[in-house]
Amino acid sequence: MLSAAEKKMIRTLHRKSERQERRLFLVEGPTLVREALDAGWAFERVVATAGWPVPPALASACVTVSQDELGAVSAMEAPNQVLAAVRMPDEAPPPQPSGLVLCLDDVQDPGNLGTILRSAAWFGVERVVCSPDCVERFNPKVVQASMGAVFRVPVHVVPLPAYLGNLPTSTAVAGAVLDGANVYTVDHPEPAVLVLGNEARGLSAGVMARIRTPVTIPRLGSGESLNVAMAATVLCSVWREEPLRGPSVARL
Amino acid sequence: MLSAAEKKMIRTLHRKSERQERRLFLVEGPTLVREALDAGWAFERVVATAGWPVPPALASACVTVSQDELGAVSAMEAPNQVLAAVRMPDEAPPPQPSGLVLCLDDVQDPGNLGTILRSAAWFGVERVVCSPDCVERFNPKVVQASMGAVFRVPVHVVPLPAYLGNLPTSTAVAGAVLDGANVYTVDHPEPAVLVLGNEARGLSAGVMARIRTPVTIPRLGSGESLNVAMAATVLCSVWREEPLRGPSVARL
Repeated sequence: MLSAAEKKMIRTLHRKSERQERRLFLVEGPTLVREALDAGWAFERVVATAGWPVPPALASACVTVSQDELGAVSAMEAPNQVLAAVRMPDEAPPPQPSGLVLCLDDVQDPGNLGTILRSAAWFGVERVVCSPDCVERFNPKVVQASMGAVFRVPVHVVPLPAYLGNLPTSTAVAGAVLDGANVYTVDHPEPAVLVLGNEARGLSAGVMARIRTPVTIPRLGSGESLNVAMAATVLCSVWREEPLRGPSVARL
Repeated sequence: MLSAAEKKMIRTLHRKSERQERRLFLVEGPTLVREALDAGWAFERVVATAGWPVPPALASACVTVSQDELGAVSAMEAPNQVLAAVRMPDEAPPPQPSGLVLCLDDVQDPGNLGTILRSAAWFGVERVVCSPDCVERFNPKVVQASMGAVFRVPVHVVPLPAYLGNLPTSTAVAGAVLDGANVYTVDHPEPAVLVLGNEARGLSAGVMARIRTPVTIPRLGSGESLNVAMAATVLCSVWREEPLRGPSVARL
């Protein structure tokens, strides 16, 4: 059973300001909890219903509750067996890119960020660098949509104009824009930083000024626009086509 | 002002069974209503707040309501100026493919189907063929996530084993699976049907038996899986790389 104080503490983690203040965030459901554990994240508290098989490493942090108690602290519509308060890692500045980096300028939708992290993990993106006005990666909907990729892909939050402006000249800086070069036909060197903008407004002026190669995914049909997560995924696929053609772990 | 009977009728369209019975579905917000109008769909009723500029073609179908009244019939959390009951088109069997067709086997998430339609419109997919157990394309969340692509990409709902089994031998039938050929290195002929399966279970046995070219998007990183909408988008991008490299309308 949870104390009233603990209930209250966990419920405060539904809010970004409290998550950032406490440096804790919520991870829900057996699959995501397992992913966080396997990836070595630190657990502050684990709240589970009786049926959940508690991994030995989490036994001391775990308290057993009723389904109603779990529902009372969960951020999900259908709480699923277990919820954990997990510690955020220390913030570190992003190192210079050695492979492929995704950079997100004011991406707002939690589902989009979660899906971008998932694709980033798939295509071997080394890290994701977010502008401070992006949706928070520890938002419960981002964590959920990432299917655990949030635990595996390093994410940094830094002002993008300074980050992009300080990249070595040997690093490609490609930005997704409306009237750039055809991304399928430009060269795809690495290290490279691929930059995507806000769902409605695209890249901000300060970021646009740092783009060295503006690129566009050409349109063959009648579509109005591509979802930013789709655009990010296509850019990764196109940029990495050469290694993707080689021998590699294959699974859809 | 709306009559009680009309209010009730519109609210029934939140449910799939009533939508299918009445052959009507909901379209919400100025952008989507404009898209449906431009694409020539038939409007049964339009409900708008006073600030919305009524297009002449919709004047006779339009009734002005208060924000509260709009909220009472809307399926959205934040109703936006206008809602329309739009007529579903007659069902027609899909013709033989001439270009690229996407085929969806039991795709359940409305956001995924909407996003797939949006990518299909972008990459010039000629139609989308859904199994009868897919989420309904007229689900309000699908319509919303499609950003209007639902009005431009023809969609058919038919049992897939029969559809796939009756395709000419000259049509490529590629299915996304875990252990197929590398999709980047196989040939990409057209006409082609690209088949994607359920979010958790992949392709059903009856569909799998009709796949002529099992394909896989290889993995370069640590990702657990790709979202089905991401996979569909990558398959379109890869299959159409040759035309995408040519001159084409370019916009992201």
